[in-house]
Amino acid sequence: MAVYTDVPPEELEAFLSTYELGRLRAFKGIAEGVENSNFLLQTEAGSFILTLYEKRVNPDDLPFFIGLMQHLANRGIDCPQPVRNRDGVALGRLAGRPALIATFLLGTSVRRPSVANCAALGTALAGLHQAGADFTAFSRVNALSVVGWRPLYEQAESRADTVAPGLAALIADELSVLEPGWPVGLPAGVIHADLFPDNVFFTDDRLSGLIDFYFACNDTLAYDVAICLNAWCFEADGAYNQTKGRALLAGYQAVRPLSPAEIAALPMLCRGAALRFLLTRLVDWLNVPPGALVRPHDPREYLRKLRFHRSVESVRDYGVDA
Amino acid sequence: MAVYTDVPPEELEAFLSTYELGRLRAFKGIAEGVENSNFLLQTEAGSFILTLYEKRVNPDDLPFFIGLMQHLANRGIDCPQPVRNRDGVALGRLAGRPALIATFLLGTSVRRPSVANCAALGTALAGLHQAGADFTAFSRVNALSVVGWRPLYEQAESRADTVAPGLAALIADELSVLEPGWPVGLPAGVIHADLFPDNVFFTDDRLSGLIDFYFACNDTLAYDVAICLNAWCFEADGAYNQTKGRALLAGYQAVRPLSPAEIAALPMLCRGAALRFLLTRLVDWLNVPPGALVRPHDPREYLRKLRFHRSVESVRDYGVDA
Repeated sequence: MAVYTDVPPEELEAFLSTYELGRLRAFKGIAEGVENSNFLLQTEAGSFILTLYEKRVNPDDLPFFIGLMQHLANRGIDCPQPVRNRDGVALGRLAGRPALIATFLLGTSVRRPSVANCAALGTALAGLHQAGADFTAFSRVNALSVVGWRPLYEQAESRADTVAPGLAALIADELSVLEPGWPVGLPAGVIHADLFPDNVFFTDDRLSGLIDFYFACNDTLAYDVAICLNAWCFEADGAYNQTKGRALLAGYQAVRPLSPAEIAALPMLCRGAALRFLLTRLVDWLNVPPGALVRPHDPREYLRKLRFHRSVESVRDYGVDA
Repeated sequence: MAVYTDVPPEELEAFLSTYELGRLRAFKGIAEGVENSNFLLQTEAGSFILTLYEKRVNPDDLPFFIGLMQHLANRGIDCPQPVRNRDGVALGRLAGRPALIATFLLGTSVRRPSVANCAALGTALAGLHQAGADFTAFSRVNALSVVGWRPLYEQAESRADTVAPGLAALIADELSVLEPGWPVGLPAGVIHADLFPDNVFFTDDRLSGLIDFYFACNDTLAYDVAICLNAWCFEADGAYNQTKGRALLAGYQAVRPLSPAEIAALPMLCRGAALRFLLTRLVDWLNVPPGALVRPHDPREYLRKLRFHRSVESVRDYGVDA
């Protein structure tokens, strides 16, 4: 749920006049993304999404995000394509904020991904990794990889057990394993890093778009796979669905086969991915202002996923041959 | 800011399959209205707004609201037209709530109405009153007219002076004038009762749509004019703009001339309209949960308007000939 900024119509008109998009036909705030204000913008030229970057986004990262979307769109990835103004510039300014107009993607997200959805997601993720391989104009460090986890833990440590008994000790134990054992030297490149079902659109079971590149960064490609196994392949009751995992991994490998080292690292990468979302959700959960309308995601969902990964004995448990 | 209810995609598909709208192409929560959840719905048949009625709307009122929109649309008023399902029924049920699909109106609302906007609004309001004259299938009492004000005052009385010194006494004084002196016997019919600038769309200065009929009711027509004078004809600094008032009233009278009795009643109706919004805003303002993301409207805006109306010496001050 978003829409934080109110856009005065006069400012919108002035902003739009710097683009070749014709006249305004409709404009509505939409609930998409959580970091920024997003609007449906309809003009004589078609439908677009206008994004105003709010304070949680570092303006220094915008050239990376916008350049990446442009790069991926140029390579045929179904993602929002930044629209340039008459001066050839995509990043503008509106209502006192950095602003971007991008193309509107058709499709809707799925709540409970099917096996076919997981296969399509795996294929799209591999395509994204391949298309991003030569995006070198900008780079962005992943602040939410292994070195970022202990500071989050320290913010939550004293109150973690109010969310689940023993949680602080479990996270400390996890960190003691992941920090020294985190896989290094695996193939790296641009990763999406947040490719949850609500950031993927389907039209009649065909994957029609990937959105929300605002966690994208340079990191280990297989870590992106691990994030998706966490986000797509667990059932509502907390059980890992090996059929979906197998489909996701097979879909991925049909485009970009994983090396033996990447496959061997999957259990550790999946533990790390589960811990990353457990930690950010835990910090958000412990810091909800009273009376807030937006309820954060339950961190315990990722605690259950982490427990599954700790119980895994072989990569075969994920649905891939060792 | 709205979007309260999450719609499971599977339920949406099942719901849509009862309509002749073809396949789903896009679905996004939008920030429109404050009482209900609204979504942009794009299908093969075009763009629509899906509304889920939340608990602040009385389900018993829905036949009035939906019947009225259908009636007005049939008479050529640019308002959302309810879409019937295959069984010929407009009101459905989705995500455990009453649900309506209506046509999507092009246009955008204005923040600072121009004189031309006010003239167009007046004309549209009179058209609405005329088109609603033979809507007799359902009726709805205005709970926020004069008999509803004292209960609101009693909710706010003890803390009113924390908002503005002397406010409780001023409201009490106003009620002592309005309750015995409220105009009766003027022409009545269906009124919109909430026709603020954000409920009116324009396309290139042409009024292209009226939305949000969820305060509509049967009441004095000239009271609707008074609500609009309050909502459209004051400047940001609190001053009444007589040129805008004159334009609104002339636009209205070009379609439906006001009787001498209606004109004579305008100052009292304007005071009542100002008090009505002052009171509801005051109650909302005093009952904001701490940390809430949605800030209510400032009641003092309507206190300033009320003070203007108390100072009026003649209807000529509004821009109309006595």
